[in-house]
Amino acid sequence: MSDGQRNKITVDIYGQQYVIVGDESSNHIRLVAEMVDEKMREISFKNPSLSTTKLAVLTAVNTIHDYVKLKEDLEQLQNDIKQLKE
Amino acid sequence: MSDGQRNKITVDIYGQQYVIVGDESSNHIRLVAEMVDEKMREISFKNPSLSTTKLAVLTAVNTIHDYVKLKEDLEQLQNDIKQLKE
Repeated sequence: MSDGQRNKITVDIYGQQYVIVGDESSNHIRLVAEMVDEKMREISFKNPSLSTTKLAVLTAVNTIHDYVKLKEDLEQLQNDIKQLKE
Repeated sequence: MSDGQRNKITVDIYGQQYVIVGDESSNHIRLVAEMVDEKMREISFKNPSLSTTKLAVLTAVNTIHDYVKLKEDLEQLQNDIKQLKE
């Protein structure tokens, strides 16, 4: 995904602008920002009284949960492959 | 990881308490909370002037980025397996 240069783009997340700098393509950065925005809106819809800070922290909690689950899937798949090779 | 019941536990993330309810084990919820807390402290260390909200949003951005990368790895591995079977 990297094109070898630092990209600096401005994205809108939950009504606030953020400047994101990274090696990734602008498309990747925009996709990530859209996913965060979407998750924040989902959680806010279910919990309308939350402050933006709590909402953002719970979005991070939610995402790390998904990450840990995905990592478990990946490790399981790697173990399956290892066993197939034995 | 689920033991079939809803767990409700209080965790501390970046000096603030959050009540997390989920099907996951208390250990899983605590691990996830610790990972969020750690990521927030890492980003805060590099950007000490950020507000807690911006810090939490950038933590979510960072995590979704990791998630997307991991998903690409998983898909690559699944494709490799598919090709091996063909």
